[in-house]
Amino acid sequence: MTVHIENPNGAPQSVTVGPIQGSRKVYAEIKERSDIRVPFREIALSDRTETAIRIYDPSGPYTEANPAIDLKRGLPLVREAWIAARGIEAADARPVKPEDNGYVSGDRLVVPCPAERVVRRAAPGQMVTQYEFARAGIITEEMIYVAHRENLCRETMLENAEARIADGESFGAAIPPFITPEFVRREVACGRAIIPANINHPELEPMVIGRNFLVKVNANIGNSAVVSTAADEVEKLVWAIRWGADTVMDLSTGRNIHNIRSWILRNSPVPIGTVPIYQALEKVGGDPAKLDWEVFKDTLIEQAEQGVDYFTIHAGVRLPYVPLTANRVTGIVSRGGSIMARWCLAHHKESFLYERFDEICDIMRAYDVSFSLGDGLRPGSIADANDAAQFAELETLGELTKLAWSKGCQVMIEGPGHVPMHKIKVNMDKQLRECGEAPFYTLGPLTTDIAPGYDHITSGIGAAMIGWFGTAMLCYVTPKEHLGLPNRDDVKTGVITYRIAAHAADLAKGHPAAQMRDDALSRARFDFRWEDQFNLSLDPDTARAFHDETLPKEAHKAAHFCSMCGPKFCSMKITQDLRAEMAAMSPEDQERLAGMRTKSQEFLAGGGKLYVGRP
Amino acid sequence: MTVHIENPNGAPQSVTVGPIQGSRKVYAEIKERSDIRVPFREIALSDRTETAIRIYDPSGPYTEANPAIDLKRGLPLVREAWIAARGIEAADARPVKPEDNGYVSGDRLVVPCPAERVVRRAAPGQMVTQYEFARAGIITEEMIYVAHRENLCRETMLENAEARIADGESFGAAIPPFITPEFVRREVACGRAIIPANINHPELEPMVIGRNFLVKVNANIGNSAVVSTAADEVEKLVWAIRWGADTVMDLSTGRNIHNIRSWILRNSPVPIGTVPIYQALEKVGGDPAKLDWEVFKDTLIEQAEQGVDYFTIHAGVRLPYVPLTANRVTGIVSRGGSIMARWCLAHHKESFLYERFDEICDIMRAYDVSFSLGDGLRPGSIADANDAAQFAELETLGELTKLAWSKGCQVMIEGPGHVPMHKIKVNMDKQLRECGEAPFYTLGPLTTDIAPGYDHITSGIGAAMIGWFGTAMLCYVTPKEHLGLPNRDDVKTGVITYRIAAHAADLAKGHPAAQMRDDALSRARFDFRWEDQFNLSLDPDTARAFHDETLPKEAHKAAHFCSMCGPKFCSMKITQDLRAEMAAMSPEDQERLAGMRTKSQEFLAGGGKLYVGRP
Repeated sequence: MTVHIENPNGAPQSVTVGPIQGSRKVYAEIKERSDIRVPFREIALSDRTETAIRIYDPSGPYTEANPAIDLKRGLPLVREAWIAARGIEAADARPVKPEDNGYVSGDRLVVPCPAERVVRRAAPGQMVTQYEFARAGIITEEMIYVAHRENLCRETMLENAEARIADGESFGAAIPPFITPEFVRREVACGRAIIPANINHPELEPMVIGRNFLVKVNANIGNSAVVSTAADEVEKLVWAIRWGADTVMDLSTGRNIHNIRSWILRNSPVPIGTVPIYQALEKVGGDPAKLDWEVFKDTLIEQAEQGVDYFTIHAGVRLPYVPLTANRVTGIVSRGGSIMARWCLAHHKESFLYERFDEICDIMRAYDVSFSLGDGLRPGSIADANDAAQFAELETLGELTKLAWSKGCQVMIEGPGHVPMHKIKVNMDKQLRECGEAPFYTLGPLTTDIAPGYDHITSGIGAAMIGWFGTAMLCYVTPKEHLGLPNRDDVKTGVITYRIAAHAADLAKGHPAAQMRDDALSRARFDFRWEDQFNLSLDPDTARAFHDETLPKEAHKAAHFCSMCGPKFCSMKITQDLRAEMAAMSPEDQERLAGMRTKSQEFLAGGGKLYVGRP
Repeated sequence: MTVHIENPNGAPQSVTVGPIQGSRKVYAEIKERSDIRVPFREIALSDRTETAIRIYDPSGPYTEANPAIDLKRGLPLVREAWIAARGIEAADARPVKPEDNGYVSGDRLVVPCPAERVVRRAAPGQMVTQYEFARAGIITEEMIYVAHRENLCRETMLENAEARIADGESFGAAIPPFITPEFVRREVACGRAIIPANINHPELEPMVIGRNFLVKVNANIGNSAVVSTAADEVEKLVWAIRWGADTVMDLSTGRNIHNIRSWILRNSPVPIGTVPIYQALEKVGGDPAKLDWEVFKDTLIEQAEQGVDYFTIHAGVRLPYVPLTANRVTGIVSRGGSIMARWCLAHHKESFLYERFDEICDIMRAYDVSFSLGDGLRPGSIADANDAAQFAELETLGELTKLAWSKGCQVMIEGPGHVPMHKIKVNMDKQLRECGEAPFYTLGPLTTDIAPGYDHITSGIGAAMIGWFGTAMLCYVTPKEHLGLPNRDDVKTGVITYRIAAHAADLAKGHPAAQMRDDALSRARFDFRWEDQFNLSLDPDTARAFHDETLPKEAHKAAHFCSMCGPKFCSMKITQDLRAEMAAMSPEDQERLAGMRTKSQEFLAGGGKLYVGRP
């Protein structure tokens, strides 16, 4: 389903709305705070003995049954009252400047989103960030919200004595059976988790990033060379979060980016991240050498006042590290990293991001923009993984993390890149050590370079592993990586692949409720409840379409077999028959069966060998 | 390119032939044995300073530039002279019986492949299997062949002092810098590797499966419900090996399977595996309870004489283990496993496969059919992973491995299934311990159940990991798993995904030459040699198509940027400019740069912190 949007520039546009097939949006009310309503996606099952499953749902109001979407008004202001109650005053907003939109004017100018919002800025010394509140022992509404959001099916699981307690190997992560707001506060206070939530992004449905919470996924979007309309850009966001992106980075460059960003932010229920150096570079005509602190600082304020929730800041690319990349197979592959390296060498000076880091902290704190400390020297090939340049930068990021904390800011750390499997864990361990357990946010990593066209898979392998080892958020990679711009299908494939990686990691870490969805789906599979199986899957549309390709008839949805083996060879059917047989046995035979079970255990205990002593 | 084949049943058919784009088939001659020619796929690069890369190539003559393919004559008899020289006599072939093709006749009967072959069978006591030759200290032609096949670029790498020696974590695998025929013999002799090579499959291009060799990939094919023509079935094989399947299992059921199998075997350059119990079940009308030793034995002989290279035998599904599956979420999911479980319970008897294992060995030895000991009790869901039933069976497979060895047979062991990441390594370790390091051959494993439609990815993650830990061959999973029959695109996606997993595993294990292809591709990427990048990739067609979607013009193939960032933001271009700048520096500046590099190392050694001592 789509809603048609009156396009500010003329042509009709639409965004995708309505629930994912087989699901409905529910809002859970919290007893202690009736003004906090936490969204979930609920999947009802056809078997009445099965509990409906609640899924974490970052998709916002778009997936309601009949959402009142109006891009020009923006989304409901979930956080407005909370922020207002903290006494953070409206500020004199920085006026929009011609360079913010690349000096474009007239017909070529995309009009800004007309939704009016108060622009706020904390006064120096005034408490504003989630980190500062947490340190002060204050539980914010955002902390309550994410605590309830993270718990998902844990209540059900804890109530249900039969439900298995998940095992797992957490590598030092400490995931509690139940998440309380106080637990969230403690995690934020020690820097182990962040809640990216700019005070100028009241539309945000808060979420938490940290290794003691569910593993999150980021999707990147960006404008195309031929500037699309604002609604097109919002649709990219809506599409990515529909399939499960927890945050979205807007990596747009070129003209109109300020105004397009206003449409994205006013209509985004998820945190939006950006790389401010991209826009700063646009403002100086594209020559890295022309960058300076003033243009960068002005860009930070511009974007912070719009409501961007986290900034990638490549402050770890220091002058002395640049020569360490000289003999690499693929040099510097981070855009921000290469821009800063060029600036450093051009001026033979230390990076202004590093030297002005104190001031950057002051700006970001005033709006509670979280740091995503960029890995500008990440490896771009298997050959360059874990080299001196990469690790030198990581050590600097550790230093900057502690500085940012001391200034009251929230921090996460970006990570590689291209890393073969046996070198992945070293990255995680070193990051935890150097950066005081600040959340790690990695791109993949890709575990081989030889499969362009399939880099969602080469990197999905690495993402699942590093997620298991402790990475808090995984930045997706689409099949178009290294080759071209992802289209709609590529974005969906990237998001679903990364949801697989994140969920596989949650399972392996021993998340107490992660396996409930696997078990529900597997029971549906074994019972031949095809519709339940589709609806419980990450992508019901594709699962249903694949099934229907071979067995299209509605009747087959109830069939006790599938097209793969046919009725005669279906192992599940044979096993079901076998169970039915056992159940229908006479009491004597049942006893015999029980005896056999005991006997088989004795048999096993005794070594269970028929051919004992054979050569 | 396709060659049109005169279809025995009328309609014209074709199989895909011709090289993969950017590659050419080469046959390397072996100095000491000029009659042994080993196939490779060679990728020439546009940069003259780059050595052409040789890729392992299981695709057979089909990927020659102008192959003389005639399905009715079958492939060239690569092994005929070798086998003949061993003095293994022609046997009285078992006559084809009506039940072999499901009693089908007349127009509905697919005619058998008319290619005539001698049917051989070793006399009792006559040495015939690769295992027996290896134990006797004899190096067979097959061992020489696979030694050369495995070495790939190792000569180049060892000659080239600059080439980096791969690191890696091999978990006890011992991969030598260079593979000699004697090394292959030793690995086969101790059961750590197998060369599946039925003496009645002279068309085979030999390959080796073992954890000290390259990780291999199997693809499954099978006839559809509507029986396709023989050429259609051969095309499935040709398509799978084109993209890199090292062995193919024919899981066909229903009518005409004997005759279709004859077309497959006579036209297959790779080992063919089957599950003989499937055909045996057909012969008794589909009721597992009606199976008996005689019909099974006759089926083994039938298929062994046709040339099948390995048989899945579910001899580990023992009567006392069946009750252990009673409380599973998904019961028994292996078709062979459920058939045998049903037989055991119906008769309240121990499995005839287990009780007759000696005799099975004698039959398989006489043709050198390798065992693939089936995991009939593998878990079908995350909930059932690593349970008592699964591990009880694995222990029995260990017992049977040693028995099969004592009878002169080659053996590999099948493994799961559905296993969360933290339970994967236990499987590998237990398999190595129980089965005396016989090669492990796993299906995935799938690391979560919640993504039907994407199970090539859920399982590709597990496959890469278990391949790294020591699995010798990975059985592919296609996107249609659990949902329907894979089509042509699904087969290709499955094979490519598993080639990624296998290669990622080779890299992580520290295979001495695996990284050469990654490095060559990454250099091409950094140099903007787009054609080289496409040609070096696992799927040049897709890589090229994805690139052309955004930048279709030929001129862009030489462009020093791509559509993702455009020329201004291309990090690789910026880095290249930066390097060019460094190279063009005056001697004084070069010295300064060298000094900076030293300085940066000193800086790092000293802790490299600007903000030392900050709070």
